[in-house]
Amino acid sequence: MQKVILDVDTGIDDALAILYTIGEEHADLIGITTTYGNIGLHQATKNTLDLLNLVGETDLPVFKGSIHSLSDKEYIRREVTSRIHGENGIGNIEIESSTRKPESQDAVDFLIDSAIKYGKELKLICVGPLTNLAYAYEKNPEALLQVDEIVIMGGALTVPGNVTSFAEANIIEDAVAAKTILESNLPLKIVGLDVTMRTILTQKETEEWWKYNTNCSQAIAEMTDYYFKSYKERLGFDGCALHDPLAVGIALHPELAETLALNLLVNLEEPSRGHIIGDYEKLHDKNPTTEVCIQVDHEQFLAHFMQAMENILNI
Amino acid sequence: MQKVILDVDTGIDDALAILYTIGEEHADLIGITTTYGNIGLHQATKNTLDLLNLVGETDLPVFKGSIHSLSDKEYIRREVTSRIHGENGIGNIEIESSTRKPESQDAVDFLIDSAIKYGKELKLICVGPLTNLAYAYEKNPEALLQVDEIVIMGGALTVPGNVTSFAEANIIEDAVAAKTILESNLPLKIVGLDVTMRTILTQKETEEWWKYNTNCSQAIAEMTDYYFKSYKERLGFDGCALHDPLAVGIALHPELAETLALNLLVNLEEPSRGHIIGDYEKLHDKNPTTEVCIQVDHEQFLAHFMQAMENILNI
Repeated sequence: MQKVILDVDTGIDDALAILYTIGEEHADLIGITTTYGNIGLHQATKNTLDLLNLVGETDLPVFKGSIHSLSDKEYIRREVTSRIHGENGIGNIEIESSTRKPESQDAVDFLIDSAIKYGKELKLICVGPLTNLAYAYEKNPEALLQVDEIVIMGGALTVPGNVTSFAEANIIEDAVAAKTILESNLPLKIVGLDVTMRTILTQKETEEWWKYNTNCSQAIAEMTDYYFKSYKERLGFDGCALHDPLAVGIALHPELAETLALNLLVNLEEPSRGHIIGDYEKLHDKNPTTEVCIQVDHEQFLAHFMQAMENILNI
Repeated sequence: MQKVILDVDTGIDDALAILYTIGEEHADLIGITTTYGNIGLHQATKNTLDLLNLVGETDLPVFKGSIHSLSDKEYIRREVTSRIHGENGIGNIEIESSTRKPESQDAVDFLIDSAIKYGKELKLICVGPLTNLAYAYEKNPEALLQVDEIVIMGGALTVPGNVTSFAEANIIEDAVAAKTILESNLPLKIVGLDVTMRTILTQKETEEWWKYNTNCSQAIAEMTDYYFKSYKERLGFDGCALHDPLAVGIALHPELAETLALNLLVNLEEPSRGHIIGDYEKLHDKNPTTEVCIQVDHEQFLAHFMQAMENILNI
């Protein structure tokens, strides 16, 4: 069983990533840390707790993290984000509120303590802005350097960004944090739009969820329908990209992705703030610490994803 | 023997690519087409003929091509290009002028006729701006679609450009031609800065050439020293990238490179004119027609290159 921590800004695809991880028999999810991003911190944390309650995972600890980026004084939600994820972040579905509160320990300290406790047994899977991770790295770099791998959903290397032509949402949301992390020597695997835009879920798949006809399956299918609708409206295509779930999939099944070993830079200057690109200065490093996913076996990934979702939704 | 045509703007690394191709026992170089780029068309053609004369290849036909890009009315040499390649394009070395003239047939027609004549037996290796190729494709697309492969030195996908942060020289020199070619269905292999900046020649290698102590080896070693000097001044490092020779190497030894199958777009708008990037619209194509080289076995390539250069310089 692979020990993992998920760092999320729960959003629709974060929600799918959480459920996928719980349903995956290879994963031992030891905790979830939350951040702002697809929605504000408070609602992201609430969504996380409510989803865990929905699927009966009432003992899984949730740790509240950063409320805004390193360079901003507050979090301001992009209008487009609201259209993609809905006002409440999870496609405006109504699910029972959990009575649980997040743990008293801060997300950043939980990341550090877990890194120290589990070291090479642990993978961090970060699918929101990298603020929590940057705080943890600045506070205790040695601790984070001990983990087996940090899998990051973020960036766009070989394809255009989704916020600007150059920048992907998680990276540009906190470009300073991204620069801290991506330019460090941490053992990183980047799961960017390069591969996530190749993994498409369609109504053909979610029909299965509707058929399970459980409270839970109906809610998740309805949430995903909202995501489909926003993809159709914005991009004109049928289906949605499985951004955050793919980061989980590649963390648990590394063979799904082809990677390029490449140390990255993060640009902070306009017009390409948030652009990630290879670092010439380190091009001849024998052992780059970053691997960028450039190709993915999307059929195999979808099979893993659907099996795990069945494990959790069809009960 | 692999039939190839080289399309060159002879420049120092073009000169090395020409000699490398001649020295490679797997290559059957059936002709060279010239273009502007590192230097104007006239001098590029003269350099090509003079180099062939230097190494005794007095029967190899040379075809003069385009004098300026599709979108400009004249060719204006960048000041930096002069510093990189020297006033005469070949590091200001003085070699005997060939008495030969280029063929009367135009480069564009030679490309088309050869594509029709040899089809799948032929690879085109284009290491300058893509103007000749774009003219040929517009004049007779069916002909060019018949060739086995078109290997292009140009672009920067996973690393920054060398003219701007986004654009590589050959692409930005004629971005309209590049757009025509890179967005077509031609069977393309892109050898960009992603891989060429990983293949470095140093004085350790060219010491061999000095030792051969032939007219030819001395001239080429001197020319390459000029290139070393410009790399040291501009980029502060010892050695030079083997841009154009690597395109030849990968055309003749495809196993040298790892590639990513990815249909590309070429941006024409500032500030990122000349930027190449994956095309989302075609991301789910089962059979992309473009392969982008993303990693290279630089040691093996250098071994091939040095052997071929010995074959031609040490005689």
